Amino acid sequence: MEQWLPSLKTDTAQEGYDLAVKLARKGVGLTQPDAEVRKRLRPEYAENADSLTFASQVIAIHFQTVAAANDYWK
Amino acid sequence: MEQWLPSLKTDTAQEGYDLAVKLARKGVGLTQPDAEVRKRLRPEYAENADSLTFASQVIAIHFQTVAAANDYWK
Amino acid sequence: MEQWLPSLKTDTAQEGYDLAVKLARKGVGLTQPDAEVRKRLRPEYAENADSLTFASQVIAIHFQTVAAANDYWK
Amino acid sequence: MEQWLPSLKTDTAQEGYDLAVKLARKGVGLTQPDAEVRKRLRPEYAENADSLTFASQVIAIHFQTVAAANDYWK
Amino acid sequence: MEQWLPSLKTDTAQEGYDLAVKLARKGVGLTQPDAEVRKRLRPEYAENADSLTFASQVIAIHFQTVAAANDYWK
Amino acid sequence: MEQWLPSLKTDTAQEGYDLAVKLARKGVGLTQPDAEVRKRLRPEYAENADSLTFASQVIAIHFQTVAAANDYWK
Repeated sequence: MEQWLPSLKTDTAQEGYDLAVKLARKGVGLTQPDAEVRKRLRPEYAENADSLTFASQVIAIHFQTVAAANDYWK
Repeated sequence: MEQWLPSLKTDTAQEGYDLAVKLARKGVGLTQPDAEVRKRLRPEYAENADSLTFASQVIAIHFQTVAAANDYWK
Repeated sequence: MEQWLPSLKTDTAQEGYDLAVKLARKGVGLTQPDAEVRKRLRPEYAENADSLTFASQVIAIHFQTVAAANDYWK
Repeated sequence: MEQWLPSLKTDTAQEGYDLAVKLARKGVGLTQPDAEVRKRLRPEYAENADSLTFASQVIAIHFQTVAAANDYWK
Repeated sequence: MEQWLPSLKTDTAQEGYDLAVKLARKGVGLTQPDAEVRKRLRPEYAENADSLTFASQVIAIHFQTVAAANDYWK
Repeated sequence: MEQWLPSLKTDTAQEGYDLAVKLARKGVGLTQPDAEVRKRLRPEYAENADSLTFASQVIAIHFQTVAAANDYWK
């Protein structure tokens, strides 16, 4: 099985944000595993303001988790 | 009664993510227990970008819980 | 007055999930107290993928609360 | 000014849930202060499954706060 | 630059709720800085039940933050 | 690689709010990297009340994270 999430630890807040993006996308990928379908959906979704906001929200929720896991990089 | 959630503990962050996916799907399954109906709904939903984002969001919320339960696998 | 929520404590994580489902449904029941109306709404909603995801999300939010109340059944 | 929120403390979990409902409704009331308008909106909204789920979700978020404020009534 | 958020501390829970409302509205104001446009949008939105619920939800999320900042006014 | 998030620490609550806005917008920018497209989407979205509420919600979620990272500027 593919190892895609070795840890929630990151060196910096910015890398933590990148990890949050990865976690959000993984949730989409697990629900729709077909990369071709995801690619086909992309134009419609990347040009809809609400869709972009919804995607940003999932990142925000994961960023809460990653930030807590890293004690907010204090 | 079926035992499907023995614990929130997992060995790794990635297994924690898988558990979050399971928790999210269980919520759907308890609301619509008929597997045939869920299967019928799948194509429409797996090809709608916002539906995929919404599904990813529920996973994100459960992942917060599982991560906290495992002290973020520190 | 009906006693429906004696405590947030449960013996197991799975019972905690069941309690989260109960808490989510109570929120619907308090907003629409007429059981006949809720029954009438059910088919439409149980066959809509996004509606199922939204319902699963409310369960997820309550499960965070119940899990924290039980110190994650550690 | 009307005193409507003296404290987040409640004696029981169930009273905490009732307070969460009150907090959720207050948010609606502050955005639409006209009780007549809110009354007029009610039928449409109380008979829409997703609207009921969304209302239940706001209760769930406030219940997290109230439960934490009461140390989960441990 | 306008100082609009000197602190998250409030004397009472109710003042904390008011601050949460302010934080929610600020998010709208920063995205749509034109007060005339916001005023024009108001009737439509204040008479839609789901819009009111969504607005109440943002308040709920900010109230979590303000309540935690004040140690729940214990 | 562009450094856009050196830290979650801010001197004041208000600067924390500004950082939350930045984090929310970054999530949109990573999903739709084309600034021209984002600009084209703006009018439609900045004049839709629900879109503004959704955007405010993502800010609210990030503000929770930033506030926690700064121990609520106590």
